[in-house]
Amino acid sequence: RINGTRLWDSLMEMAKIGPGIAGGNNRQTLTDEDSEGRYLFQKWCDEAGCTMGVDEIGNMFARREGADPDALPVYVGSHLDTQPTGGKYDGVLGVLGGLEIIRTMNDLDIKTKHPIVVTNWTNEEGTRFAPAMLASGVFAGKHDLDWARDRTDANGKKFGDELERIGWKGPEKVGNRKMHAFFELHIEQGPILEAEGRDIGVVTHGQGLRWIECTVTGKESHTGSTPMHMRKNAGRGLALVTELVHEIAMANQPNAVGAIGHIDVYPNSRNVIPGKVVFTVDMRTHLLDKLNAMVAEFQSRAPKLCEDIGVEFSCEIVGQFDPPAFNEDCVGAVRAAAERLGYSHMDIISGAGHDACWINDLYPTAMVMCPCVDGLSHHEAEEISPEWATAGTDVLMHAVLETAEI
Amino acid sequence: RINGTRLWDSLMEMAKIGPGIAGGNNRQTLTDEDSEGRYLFQKWCDEAGCTMGVDEIGNMFARREGADPDALPVYVGSHLDTQPTGGKYDGVLGVLGGLEIIRTMNDLDIKTKHPIVVTNWTNEEGTRFAPAMLASGVFAGKHDLDWARDRTDANGKKFGDELERIGWKGPEKVGNRKMHAFFELHIEQGPILEAEGRDIGVVTHGQGLRWIECTVTGKESHTGSTPMHMRKNAGRGLALVTELVHEIAMANQPNAVGAIGHIDVYPNSRNVIPGKVVFTVDMRTHLLDKLNAMVAEFQSRAPKLCEDIGVEFSCEIVGQFDPPAFNEDCVGAVRAAAERLGYSHMDIISGAGHDACWINDLYPTAMVMCPCVDGLSHHEAEEISPEWATAGTDVLMHAVLETAEI
Ligand SMILES: NC(=O)NCCC(=O)O
Ligand SMILES: NC(=O)NCCC(=O)O
Repeated sequence: RINGTRLWDSLMEMAKIGPGIAGGNNRQTLTDEDSEGRYLFQKWCDEAGCTMGVDEIGNMFARREGADPDALPVYVGSHLDTQPTGGKYDGVLGVLGGLEIIRTMNDLDIKTKHPIVVTNWTNEEGTRFAPAMLASGVFAGKHDLDWARDRTDANGKKFGDELERIGWKGPEKVGNRKMHAFFELHIEQGPILEAEGRDIGVVTHGQGLRWIECTVTGKESHTGSTPMHMRKNAGRGLALVTELVHEIAMANQPNAVGAIGHIDVYPNSRNVIPGKVVFTVDMRTHLLDKLNAMVAEFQSRAPKLCEDIGVEFSCEIVGQFDPPAFNEDCVGAVRAAAERLGYSHMDIISGAGHDACWINDLYPTAMVMCPCVDGLSHHEAEEISPEWATAGTDVLMHAVLETAEI
Repeated sequence: RINGTRLWDSLMEMAKIGPGIAGGNNRQTLTDEDSEGRYLFQKWCDEAGCTMGVDEIGNMFARREGADPDALPVYVGSHLDTQPTGGKYDGVLGVLGGLEIIRTMNDLDIKTKHPIVVTNWTNEEGTRFAPAMLASGVFAGKHDLDWARDRTDANGKKFGDELERIGWKGPEKVGNRKMHAFFELHIEQGPILEAEGRDIGVVTHGQGLRWIECTVTGKESHTGSTPMHMRKNAGRGLALVTELVHEIAMANQPNAVGAIGHIDVYPNSRNVIPGKVVFTVDMRTHLLDKLNAMVAEFQSRAPKLCEDIGVEFSCEIVGQFDPPAFNEDCVGAVRAAAERLGYSHMDIISGAGHDACWINDLYPTAMVMCPCVDGLSHHEAEEISPEWATAGTDVLMHAVLETAEI
């Protein structure tokens, strides 16, 4: 069993870096706070006797040697970056849970055949630089490294420049590692486990996602002196499209979801009719055909809605992944570990995207989930209990030990 | 007649300060660019032999002495600040037109009984600090000076601090001046004069305005893992209220207008359901009863719309003025001047608010309008012809000369 108190203390210590305004965290990717969090993680890994590798996109790999140094390592991990008003556990639990199993193995003098590597993937959240899971996506060959380096944030800063600025561009070629298996522990970020009273979610599948960046173009003009019939109000395009996204998601219940989280209005002045609105639609479901049909319906109806009120609509997919099905052996190892340790568990579909979804395309992969209060995540009030964190990390360790062979 | 070439050259010279990104201007109030524009205006006033007074809220008053120094001055003027993506004429024409009539009177050695004062009012636009016409409003006793100094911009900077920072807080008490009359020349910012083929708009009335700052509060949470029925999406509140504003304006045609120009979404992340949206509704019409009824309808229906989708609505009026009726003598002087000079003219209602609307409450006031291309304003492509600028300034001068007595 892992040391739940030590794990919790480390979670609270990490949460001091990039504190939010309401008890959570703002440690967005490639900020000074991200860099500080990385240094703390590196220090802890050094103390646990690991050697650290960093690749050209800032992914961190802390390795505990195995009995057979030629055996491919078992990887565990998640991400340390957060939303602008994020919680203390989303991502962080998976990284520090990985560290905790190494500390526990050190305590108990457990030697595995396969090395174990704890990973911190860069820019999982995708809030500052779209898309999400950017660096694990480059690792998995889904995106080109140069394309990733050219992603810009809302202030026009480039991903590649910011990575160099904070000093975490490493020497390793991205994707130059082979894995025996990959396990990611993560909070559920949804309400199901808590509602069902289960300690552990055995993740069998994930939802697919499409991020559709839309631009509605009207004509900025004076709110007072432009007669109603002469207006081209891009804000009305946003309004109609917001409701269209909701309608499409509701027509595909159960399971499908859809919303607009990011909206920029130009010029955003009280007495100027919006001339342009840029926003991103987020649509998901775990059924690929349904997901594609939802997007097709959106793309056929949104332009018409806007045209009818005299504004123009255009869109572009800026993030996407298809619904993953995790590796049966790895999923089985997670289920067996929960069973053996006496934790209540159930199979579950991940509502969010995770780095594990990309790695799953290359190597045998599975995820362990633990509940979170009210299913709330991407919110500073995101909360879990120490017992849930312990249970999840216990299961992670046992699944890893089985796979890495003692 | 004024010197149209000199006027146009000065307009183009001023437009070099705080250039926009598409041929217009971004010279928002109390920025470094605003300060630079003020220095240029001051230099020109010095060269024209005026003495400059500046009050505690940054209003500038350039005085040309009259034959009777005890006679109350005739004031002319408007504002030099612009929208973030504003044009080269909105406000600027009224200030530099005022300067041009002094230059012309110098050339022609015209002496008036009453002194003439050219004014640049601080923060007319209200885009950086709500409300609009802030400093003329304090001058007219509509707002408290301390309240004005406490207005904050989107970055939390205070009006009072920014005024001191750019060095334009003057020694004069605000409102410590008496006027014989006030005349403001301004571009129409609407399409009527151009459509009717008239050189001059004789402004008899203005629209009243209400700015209603609204907050819709939902609950931020994950766009992927929060089931549809558990969402409290503040963005949907914005969508429904956007359409409500449009519906109310359309139900009050002709004349009424309504739109939302300013929208801030929190936390504004692609994979976070908006937990809060703050936006400002702009509603106007020249009929006071109708304006009040529109606002009442809005305030009664908006909370219900939001409640029905599980989000909360609250609002506050952050800017308002009632429809002004300008002084008949001053309006008559403008109409007579246009007639005498042979310019085609028509009576018109101002769609926008102007500093003249506040001054009108204290002293005899009127406005002269000239057309603008396509009625476009609050847009970098705002355009007028040199002939329109000349005609408007000619009429301004003749109305002023009649009122100031040669
Ligand atoms: N786990 C998580 O929140 N990942 C971000 C990508 C997503 O939006 O699903
Ligand atoms: N003239 C002008 O655009 N003034 C700003 C106040 C308003 O929005 O009407």
